[in-house]
This record gives sequence, structure tokens and C-alpha cells, in this order.
Amino acid sequence: MINTMNKLNLANGCIEMVHGSGGRAMQRLIEELFLAAFDNPILRELSDQASFDLPAGRVVMATDSHVISPLFFNGGDIGSLSIHGTINDVVMSGAQPYYLSAGFILEEGFALSKLKKIVDSMAAAARDAGVPIVTGDTKVVEKGKGDGVFINTTGVGVVTSDIELSAKKIRPGCSVLLSGSIGDHGVAILSQRENLSFETTLCSDSQPLHRLVRAMIEQVPDIVAMRDPTRGGLATTLNEMAAQSGTGIIIDEKAIPIKAPVKAACEFLGLDPLYVANEGKLVAFCPPEKAERLLEVMQSQPEGKEAAIIGEVGEDRNHFVQMKTLFGGHRMVDWLTGEQLPRIC
Amino acid sequence: MINTMNKLNLANGCIEMVHGSGGRAMQRLIEELFLAAFDNPILRELSDQASFDLPAGRVVMATDSHVISPLFFNGGDIGSLSIHGTINDVVMSGAQPYYLSAGFILEEGFALSKLKKIVDSMAAAARDAGVPIVTGDTKVVEKGKGDGVFINTTGVGVVTSDIELSAKKIRPGCSVLLSGSIGDHGVAILSQRENLSFETTLCSDSQPLHRLVRAMIEQVPDIVAMRDPTRGGLATTLNEMAAQSGTGIIIDEKAIPIKAPVKAACEFLGLDPLYVANEGKLVAFCPPEKAERLLEVMQSQPEGKEAAIIGEVGEDRNHFVQMKTLFGGHRMVDWLTGEQLPRIC
Repeated sequence: MINTMNKLNLANGCIEMVHGSGGRAMQRLIEELFLAAFDNPILRELSDQASFDLPAGRVVMATDSHVISPLFFNGGDIGSLSIHGTINDVVMSGAQPYYLSAGFILEEGFALSKLKKIVDSMAAAARDAGVPIVTGDTKVVEKGKGDGVFINTTGVGVVTSDIELSAKKIRPGCSVLLSGSIGDHGVAILSQRENLSFETTLCSDSQPLHRLVRAMIEQVPDIVAMRDPTRGGLATTLNEMAAQSGTGIIIDEKAIPIKAPVKAACEFLGLDPLYVANEGKLVAFCPPEKAERLLEVMQSQPEGKEAAIIGEVGEDRNHFVQMKTLFGGHRMVDWLTGEQLPRIC
Repeated sequence: MINTMNKLNLANGCIEMVHGSGGRAMQRLIEELFLAAFDNPILRELSDQASFDLPAGRVVMATDSHVISPLFFNGGDIGSLSIHGTINDVVMSGAQPYYLSAGFILEEGFALSKLKKIVDSMAAAARDAGVPIVTGDTKVVEKGKGDGVFINTTGVGVVTSDIELSAKKIRPGCSVLLSGSIGDHGVAILSQRENLSFETTLCSDSQPLHRLVRAMIEQVPDIVAMRDPTRGGLATTLNEMAAQSGTGIIIDEKAIPIKAPVKAACEFLGLDPLYVANEGKLVAFCPPEKAERLLEVMQSQPEGKEAAIIGEVGEDRNHFVQMKTLFGGHRMVDWLTGEQLPRIC
């Protein structure tokens, strides 16, 4: 339908203000770049909304705007991260993720070749997870009013079983499980941002967790709550959950998996790994008698093979999170109060 | 739960990088600003996702990122606009809107008092439309990497009847109806941006259209397609619909409602009102024998009281949109090719 004379110059072109105008140039950007990468029957309708059927069940919706800097990093880019981040927020409720929307805020002058790389990476991540991008939006802001590209993704999923996960259901006695090593994402981003090179290449753990979660809730439906410890790290997530459940949490330092290079980088950078962001990990709470079985199920999945039981829930009217240290003492694990790593997701 | 010693300084405070950290400062921003304004039982869970039941039917999802400049304008602000824009995209499918998500990208240094004004305006618009904001996300970027505030909203709705609106169903002979005057939003923004003062205050038409649409589909279920002519204006929307349906469209200049001050401002600014953005109007297509009845229904609603039948669909293998001019001639109404008004929504 569209005149093909002035095709997008994906090799050397840049985003111009006209790409956000609603007119022919925007149409071309949508068709030649977004639709070409994300192609699926719902998106192809090119309506201002997507329309689909969902299985019966409780509907779940999660949204995340991504402003990570740098846009490309070891283990991913803003495109793949924007898919994984939102899928993970949806699945922490026990839902199966079904559909995603994508909203782009592009800065004038941003290279189309970079945008294509990001969009292709989003498309690959969405395909890999089996969750198509079915509707979208593109806006352009003047040079100096944005930072290359910001991406909002919103996801919908459905909880088809009668499982209802909630931090409010966490009770004293519950076991706390963690699906794998902490700090990988934040340390990878920071070392790249600061142009640091360590002996080992640090790599983000950005990955979708829907397969792991599905196995967990199918095999151990007694799970009471799950959450992914992203910004603010494990410490912040545990504090949120202690506060929301009105309990206290005690974790065991020696049980928490941390990769040696991540530990070394944290020491070098003066970071506490408990506060460093993750993008492919979860914490789960379950009754203590189910903990071993849940651990087994988690370890049987690729995304949970380093899973560990890291602590337990106790009574604490202050809702504190505490850690048994390697030296046998106890240390308070407070909320993140300062700002550790800006624009980490 | 949260220490209340360092409450947000809503009168004189500013957004700082720490408000995006995931830690205590972000928690405080969420609780004291967002939750206080949007409060509802689903959001109050403070999970990373919202969870709700929807009635049986086809689910509809629409997303819009808002980057309008200026943030405050006659007839609204970025907050109310972000609610109206997404609700309207959802309802153009014939759906009843149910829930919204909101993703904020805040620039370091942005005044909390302005943010509060915007958030209160969003909350009022959402309440007025009966569509709660049930989940959200907040990111902060450094000064000079954003522009005050960008807001993504994503909405879900449900089509409970067996109505299925689609541009592909538009056939030659269909009547084209418009719900009211064109150009109000774009001209209001531009005159404010350029610091122009006209004799009459120009006011955006930003408004939600769900009540109008509900009346239309209940009374005239034969409607075949609807769309809201936002960026790119009426001309661009009609071109999209002609292309997607494989038809041509002929509109009648004298039938198109334009307010006199908008017309005058367009002449002064050198704008063609057919290409100027609207934020509270829709075009609808229906079989010709239903047009008078549909017009009556539209005019009976506050959002459609100036509705008019503005043209009809014909056969045209080039999918052109043409206009019978006031002088009796015909003029091509092409796609918007240049960029008329940047950051209009």
C-alpha cells in the first residue's frame, strides 16, 4: 500500500522527528522495521489495538519501562531485557504469559541500524518465549530530550489453576528459595559502563522465567509467593516481602549462590551483591515440608539449576530481614536507602 | 511499614536519581504519590503485577507512550491525555475498557509539585472514566536524558458482544461519520507552544469516548469500523482505512465540523486542519441505510453532539481519499508526508 520509493535506510539512516508524526514516514518505520521483525497475525491488522481470546482464568497484567544504559551489554540489550523483564513480572503471579505490547520513545538522530538490532533482539526474545508482541506505539522526541531509545513493554497472562500467590500468604516457618546466583546483571552493566575489564567476562543473567515457574507451580502448587529480585536486588525484594507479609526473614550467607567473578567485582566496586540487580532470578516461599521437593524441581530446569534454599521466615514485628554471616554472626539486611546503580533496567 | 521521617517534599522537592533505584526512596514515591492518588484494591497489593477477573469475551489491548510538550495545556495535561488516549484506542474496537497500567519515565530535577499535579489529573481522568490504574512502573533518567515526564499507559478491555469491528470490513457504499469538530487538540497545543494568543482561547478536545462508543454499538451494531483520528489528523486516519479496506473515500468539505477559531488559527499558522491531531473524536463507518440512525445516536451523547455524516466509501483501486471542496471541485487528500506537529501526544 505504501509507496516504496523512499524505503528506510536501515544501514545509515537515523530517526527523524517525522518518524513520530503519524504520517507516511511513521507508517514506513512501523511496516519495514517493527512489523517485519515482530510479524504475527494480530499485529498485522495494524489497528490501534490488539484483539485476542484468552483462556478462562484470572488475568494478570504487568508493565515495565526500560531505560537501561548502555543499550547493549554482555548477555543482552535493552530489547531482550524489555521482553524478559515484563514476562518475569507476569509469571511471578503463577500466570502463563500470552501477549505483549511495546511502546518506543525514540530520540531524534538515533541510528536506525542500532534500532534494528534492538528490535530484532526483542523479536527473537519474544519468539523464544512464545509470547508475541501484538500492539505497539512509537513516539519521537528531539535530540537531547531522550537517550537513544526507551522501551515500555506491558504483558498479559492468565492464571488458569486456582493457585493464588501473594506475599500476604507468607507465614513464619516458610522456606525461602532462590533460583540461582545473584548480582550478575548489575555487575555486568556497571563494569561495562565504567569500562572496567575483569579477568572473566561478566554476563547479565537476563532470561525469561516462565518455563521454570510453570514447572514449579505444576509440581509444587503449595508455593505461597514468588518475586524476581531486580532493581534493589535480593535485599530489597526480601524486605518488601517481609513488610507485606508482616513477618521477618532470616537468610544464610553461605547458602546464597554468588559467582566468584561477581563477588570479586563487587569487592572491587564497593558493592554489596545483596543490593545488585538481577534479571533472570526469582525467590520463592513455600511451606518447609515442601522445600526439598521444590528445590529438586527448580534444579531440574535450566533456569534453576543453581537453586538453593537460602533461609526461612520467622516472626518479627519489625519485619526485619537478617543474615547469618559466614562468621556465625547476624547482620541486618536493610532496605536499599541510597542509590546503588542508576538505569540498571 | 515505611519509615516516615523523610517524607516526600511535594511542595518543593524534585525527582532525584534515587527515586528510580528500587529502594526505599522509590517505595516512598510510589506510596505517597502514586498509590495515594490512584488508590484501588488491586494496586494496593503492591505486587509487580495486577491480577483481576474479566468478563467472558474477546480481550483488547492498546498501548500509548505520551511525550506531549508542553506538559500542561488548555483542556488537559499529559496525565489526563495519557488516560483518554489509551481508553480511546481500546474502545475503538467496540470494547468496554476495564484496567490500565501506567509507566513513568521521570527526568532528574523534575518538580514533585508538577508531578503531583499530573498524577492527580490522571487519577481524576481514570476515576471519571471508571477505569482504574492497577499496576505501574517508575524509572528515572539523568537531567538532560528525558524531558520532565513521559507516560506510557496500556489498557485492557473486553468485547462482550459478537461485534467485530475492522477496517477490512469497510465496503463501497458505507457512510463515513465524524463525532465532532476537528483540529482542536493540535491547534491548542501549537498556539500554546508558540506563545500565540488568539481572541478565543483554543482548547484541546481531550476526552474519553467509551460512553459514546457504548451507545453507538448498542444502538447500531451494524457499525463496521471506528478509529480515532489522533496524530496525522482525519486525513491520515482516512487514508489508513482506505488502504486497509482496499476502497476509496470521498468526504465533503462543507460537512466537516471545524470551530471558527480553530479554522482561523490554522489559516494563521499555515496548517491544514485535516492533518491536525484530535484527542476526543472518532470516525465511524456503517452501511448507508444505518447512517441516519447512527448519527442520531451519536448526537444524543455529549461527546458526539456535533457529529456529522461527512462522506462515503467508493471503489478505488488506488485507495485514494478525496474531498469535494466548498467550491464544488475535488481535491486529493494524501497521507501526511512531512511532519506537521511534533510531540502532539
